[in-house]
Amino acid sequence: MGQYYAAVDIGATKTTASVSSRDGILARVYQLTKKRGNEATVPRQVDFLIACACQQAGIVKGQIAAVGISTVGPFEKRDGRLALAAPNVCGALGGECEGRENDWTLVPLEEELSGKYRRLRIANDCISAAVAERSFGAGRGQDDLLYVTWSTGIGGGAFVDGHLLTGKNDNALHLGHIVMSYRYADEPRCGCGGRAHLEALVAGPAIAREYGEQPPEVFRRCRNGDKRAEALIQRVARVMAIGLYSAIALLDSRLIIVGGSVSKNWDLLEPLVVTEFYKQFPALTREVVLTRSQLDQYLGDMAGLSLVMPDSWIADWQETRPWENAPETTVLDPEVV
Amino acid sequence: MGQYYAAVDIGATKTTASVSSRDGILARVYQLTKKRGNEATVPRQVDFLIACACQQAGIVKGQIAAVGISTVGPFEKRDGRLALAAPNVCGALGGECEGRENDWTLVPLEEELSGKYRRLRIANDCISAAVAERSFGAGRGQDDLLYVTWSTGIGGGAFVDGHLLTGKNDNALHLGHIVMSYRYADEPRCGCGGRAHLEALVAGPAIAREYGEQPPEVFRRCRNGDKRAEALIQRVARVMAIGLYSAIALLDSRLIIVGGSVSKNWDLLEPLVVTEFYKQFPALTREVVLTRSQLDQYLGDMAGLSLVMPDSWIADWQETRPWENAPETTVLDPEVV
Repeated sequence: MGQYYAAVDIGATKTTASVSSRDGILARVYQLTKKRGNEATVPRQVDFLIACACQQAGIVKGQIAAVGISTVGPFEKRDGRLALAAPNVCGALGGECEGRENDWTLVPLEEELSGKYRRLRIANDCISAAVAERSFGAGRGQDDLLYVTWSTGIGGGAFVDGHLLTGKNDNALHLGHIVMSYRYADEPRCGCGGRAHLEALVAGPAIAREYGEQPPEVFRRCRNGDKRAEALIQRVARVMAIGLYSAIALLDSRLIIVGGSVSKNWDLLEPLVVTEFYKQFPALTREVVLTRSQLDQYLGDMAGLSLVMPDSWIADWQETRPWENAPETTVLDPEVV
Repeated sequence: MGQYYAAVDIGATKTTASVSSRDGILARVYQLTKKRGNEATVPRQVDFLIACACQQAGIVKGQIAAVGISTVGPFEKRDGRLALAAPNVCGALGGECEGRENDWTLVPLEEELSGKYRRLRIANDCISAAVAERSFGAGRGQDDLLYVTWSTGIGGGAFVDGHLLTGKNDNALHLGHIVMSYRYADEPRCGCGGRAHLEALVAGPAIAREYGEQPPEVFRRCRNGDKRAEALIQRVARVMAIGLYSAIALLDSRLIIVGGSVSKNWDLLEPLVVTEFYKQFPALTREVVLTRSQLDQYLGDMAGLSLVMPDSWIADWQETRPWENAPETTVLDPEVV
């Protein structure tokens, strides 16, 4: 009998589940992440999606050796078990943001799910992305790497001395929430309520807010010589570089891997980021390499899976790259559960 | 025959060496750190001071089981071995600062010293302070702690998930060099050449620069109701709190231990730091505890020693606290070597 592993990606918008055997990804399904109901709604949705993926793969849930969940944070621990805290999936403290019409302050993910599978490992989506990039992407063989997503939000995951940083509540590398200006009274407000956070200055919504168009259009105009778009992209690239430098000053990484939707424009961004980055303290920056994520579009499947995949599979998967041939995601009716 | 360990503290101003047996610190000596000569001058000074401490302790160098060196950074690696880089002990890139009248770009500490002792471990002074605080000070039993020195400079050392962060060149936790304002053109310049670094805004010299008196006098005036001193101390405490918060956003520590000469005024600083700190992202800050270093004045001996002390000694030392009864340091003539 073969071994099967399930991977789940809980995003602020959608939640995906997939099932893999040693040969590759057998099935995957998704729904919009539920925003109404009670605190157990999202965990139940996760369990339901795993069951759907199993059904499509022709196995039963009991055959799953382990489930790896990659999820938006932040976390809190309740009775020692990981729960999602506000904002993002929880609405209670994020009243200004649309689409979070709930009064949840915690979603008890581990408490609700830990009894349902033989093994369960939950991590922040950027921390699990760092694991995936180190196993299968741009970070292979690197003991000191920082993965950063530059997308609707800014987040990170890091290995230092070969050790994956998690922290007391598994909230390490909340890079989007470092403060970029101590004179922050007039700076933009972040989704978490803070001001001058890196995320509030350079993430996709910040670009849209400053220009009045969505980031893909801003980048298109930048490529076409629009001066206002160019100035904005230069500014966000410079601020991002300073944020990355501050992270390096703390972590002394050798490699920075940048992923996420904004970083699809890496050809434009890289020279701007690199120029500012290397202006900073030479002893700390000169040996650092910046590169683009290699797994970017596959992280929804590979981040969670990398948390639990047995070591004996890794060499095979590095060679055959089955994530590139995953079956099409089946869209499930959001009202099914 | 007993076991002996040597500890060295290389500071920008002075260098101390001590020798300990299981019963306590047997001898310690210091000199002003040499700023002239060649790249091997400081390593030779270290070796000389260890020999002097051995002589005072009535042993010979060959009886030393291991040497732990706690030193100002930053580091670079030459042929894989740790060397001190500019600025601080090296003068080549720090021409604006007095007392570094040398053209050294690297001091090859590990290369010069590694063959001379049975075992050698070198770490940044704040990283080794974190080890000492976790073994003997305010961080006992803590797996997620951040040690910060608030002194002539700002530096840090951290354990995350019980792992001591070192990084690719052992430069982790250069907290003083994170950027506190992305609009930095008009901000004060740091000793490293950067602008708006935490160290340039809140360390002792920044306080002196802003007020025109040395920090102890500024704190004295603050206690006596001097409004300008009060406003300055409030400002630096607020900026420090924001820097500590940014570090916590990356490390998810449970405990922050503050040491260093400025922090001797913790009674004044703590309420100011704490107020600003807890204003930041609640999910990341609410479980964090800030406390004062317990080993502060003893770190010169205990930081280096903690790097190499055998585990079997730790419980004894925790109980008997021999660092409190160390012999007087003997001042050696700076021209002896």
